[in-house]
Amino acid sequence: MSIVSITRIVRFNAAHRVYNPALSDAENQRLFGKCNNPNWHGHNYTLEVTVEGAVEPRTGFVVNLADIKAIVEREIVDVVDHKNLNLDVPFMSGTIPSTENLVLACWRILAPAVAPARLAKLKLWETENQYVEYDGR
Amino acid sequence: MSIVSITRIVRFNAAHRVYNPALSDAENQRLFGKCNNPNWHGHNYTLEVTVEGAVEPRTGFVVNLADIKAIVEREIVDVVDHKNLNLDVPFMSGTIPSTENLVLACWRILAPAVAPARLAKLKLWETENQYVEYDGR
Amino acid sequence: MSIVSITRIVRFNAAHRVYNPALSDAENQRLFGKCNNPNWHGHNYTLEVTVEGAVEPRTGFVVNLADIKAIVEREIVDVVDHKNLNLDVPFMSGTIPSTENLVLACWRILAPAVAPARLAKLKLWETENQYVEYDGR
Amino acid sequence: MSIVSITRIVRFNAAHRVYNPALSDAENQRLFGKCNNPNWHGHNYTLEVTVEGAVEPRTGFVVNLADIKAIVEREIVDVVDHKNLNLDVPFMSGTIPSTENLVLACWRILAPAVAPARLAKLKLWETENQYVEYDGR
Amino acid sequence: MSIVSITRIVRFNAAHRVYNPALSDAENQRLFGKCNNPNWHGHNYTLEVTVEGAVEPRTGFVVNLADIKAIVEREIVDVVDHKNLNLDVPFMSGTIPSTENLVLACWRILAPAVAPARLAKLKLWETENQYVEYDGR
Amino acid sequence: MSIVSITRIVRFNAAHRVYNPALSDAENQRLFGKCNNPNWHGHNYTLEVTVEGAVEPRTGFVVNLADIKAIVEREIVDVVDHKNLNLDVPFMSGTIPSTENLVLACWRILAPAVAPARLAKLKLWETENQYVEYDGR
Repeated sequence: MSIVSITRIVRFNAAHRVYNPALSDAENQRLFGKCNNPNWHGHNYTLEVTVEGAVEPRTGFVVNLADIKAIVEREIVDVVDHKNLNLDVPFMSGTIPSTENLVLACWRILAPAVAPARLAKLKLWETENQYVEYDGR
Repeated sequence: MSIVSITRIVRFNAAHRVYNPALSDAENQRLFGKCNNPNWHGHNYTLEVTVEGAVEPRTGFVVNLADIKAIVEREIVDVVDHKNLNLDVPFMSGTIPSTENLVLACWRILAPAVAPARLAKLKLWETENQYVEYDGR
Repeated sequence: MSIVSITRIVRFNAAHRVYNPALSDAENQRLFGKCNNPNWHGHNYTLEVTVEGAVEPRTGFVVNLADIKAIVEREIVDVVDHKNLNLDVPFMSGTIPSTENLVLACWRILAPAVAPARLAKLKLWETENQYVEYDGR
Repeated sequence: MSIVSITRIVRFNAAHRVYNPALSDAENQRLFGKCNNPNWHGHNYTLEVTVEGAVEPRTGFVVNLADIKAIVEREIVDVVDHKNLNLDVPFMSGTIPSTENLVLACWRILAPAVAPARLAKLKLWETENQYVEYDGR
Repeated sequence: MSIVSITRIVRFNAAHRVYNPALSDAENQRLFGKCNNPNWHGHNYTLEVTVEGAVEPRTGFVVNLADIKAIVEREIVDVVDHKNLNLDVPFMSGTIPSTENLVLACWRILAPAVAPARLAKLKLWETENQYVEYDGR
Repeated sequence: MSIVSITRIVRFNAAHRVYNPALSDAENQRLFGKCNNPNWHGHNYTLEVTVEGAVEPRTGFVVNLADIKAIVEREIVDVVDHKNLNLDVPFMSGTIPSTENLVLACWRILAPAVAPARLAKLKLWETENQYVEYDGR
């Protein structure tokens, strides 16, 4: 019973400011540099959502990717797209909106949401030269 | 003795219809939606073929990638390119031509064909927003 | 009054067979080679739709691109996506479905449909290595 | 004396809100939809800067592209990167930060800045599916 | 009689050194910087070859792109691929191998070679952030 | 304590000749084909550098990617960019400059250089159709 993974890519864009409100302005500037701009900056994000499992003989699918896409759009894209990650997104509230924290938050939402499909990996691009990956470890 | 993987990317295009002939028309439509179009649709596929092994000191290669490319073109690309996956491709006969089943069929052909090189992973893109991966598990 | 162009990119996939029913099988094979496969093949197409005009001071837009996207999806994407260009698409009926003829057909539909915006160019990719362009000349 | 164009691509990211402060909230929402989010959103922008001219025999260059890159980084990228287009960028002050207005502002700055090289075209991507172009007309 | 353009993309890689043997070492270093490395450096080049004309009713083609591809591979790719532009390529002999001069040399070869098709534009990428274009002016 | 990986992509270009000086000319030609061109050829390389670890609560970062970028540029990019891998790069001296050997050499340099961050993977693209990966095994 072969295990195949299947990935759907979605895109959204958002504003954010990477800083820690518990630290001084000087320390925030030292740690986060231009990402600490008080008036925000933003990105086009690309999120690769990978689920895995055995191939169901009746459909030839691990899972119907249209269902996965609908879940990811409802749970993630509709919540963050054209939004401010610091101010507008409940699931990022109280969290420094680094790419690392964003991918972890997406995992916590998507892992139960895609069940019984098994979430295997998330890959989140912040720019074309930078991405994070998380696989539940 | 370090283990390095090396990947060659090939491309082909094909028509297919995703449906299960054992099911009713209504059930096929419910399961496969627009992918069930009776007059077919098609894709530009991209296949990433990864082999791995130790680096041979005489060549600096894990394997001569020109040999891998020739094998993949003969065994896969020449068989599926500009073809109908349901009607024209012997190795997909009797199989629902989902991306999952296509990647598994490619694995069954390529794993022995590239020996003694060890096939490590296949990644098959159906559109720029969707891909499957298989690593022999 | 500066003239700016703005482009929206849409994607669809379709099956087709490139051949001329008025010619013999041998002549079709000589002219079209593997694109003449009787059981069809297919592509992921990318269409870049460019309109141009002066920037409206009230909006900062040449045109609301959301409107252009809606028109292109209704007039083109919904008609050709997951379809057979030879059999399923009324606006390609009786036409050899080459990329050239497909881009001309899209122009004939979109030029009046986007009015009063002025259609300036269409660029249609059939594969990542081949595209056609038409600007109304 | 052949005229060749040469293009350098630069990237930056920024936050913005697309709205017209002279209009009501309801009118802004109708015109700009989710781009009107009061807490901003953002993008990774890609700017293609094209200059053209005859090839200088002594160098084989139309212009030293390193010089163009330095000018574009100083005049544009350093001013907009990781900034808020509405609040932080002097050359966008009082302007709706649509992609159209941003490309026109870049032209007004770069055309004299690259002289004696001749600015031929700017192409500005806001997302991977949307771009504007301006050539000085 | 509509005029459509059609483009084929080819790729090759080559070594080169950008310098003018008539100038001093110091002047070469000042003009060309790291591109003047005496032991060469290299690139993966991408060449977009655009021809244009009316669509032939019998084929739906402006020109058979397979013919254009064969001409470009024979006249350009086979001559420059995996070669040194300064030492190995007859058509670049005595020329500073800048991207500008390379695109002009390709034009001089391809314009007559693709006849009776009409060469409309060449676009040559040296890196993913830099390209030149020439249209015969 | 979740383990997230974060990747920074850098680019450089270089000339090389893939051959083994201990072998005859004929044997080199048989093994390496056009990559054995005595006058060199070259590539635009893309290197993806992945480090992994727990997310630090004070910053939301696994590691400050600006630090990783500075290390990779100093240790790798500044040494190989616009250079000849056979002649100019001390860390490749006496090594066949295959992609496999280049990725292993980068690992040996970067694994200690990024400490205390943990290097998790390197992915090195030689062309858009070929890459190698190494994860320290």
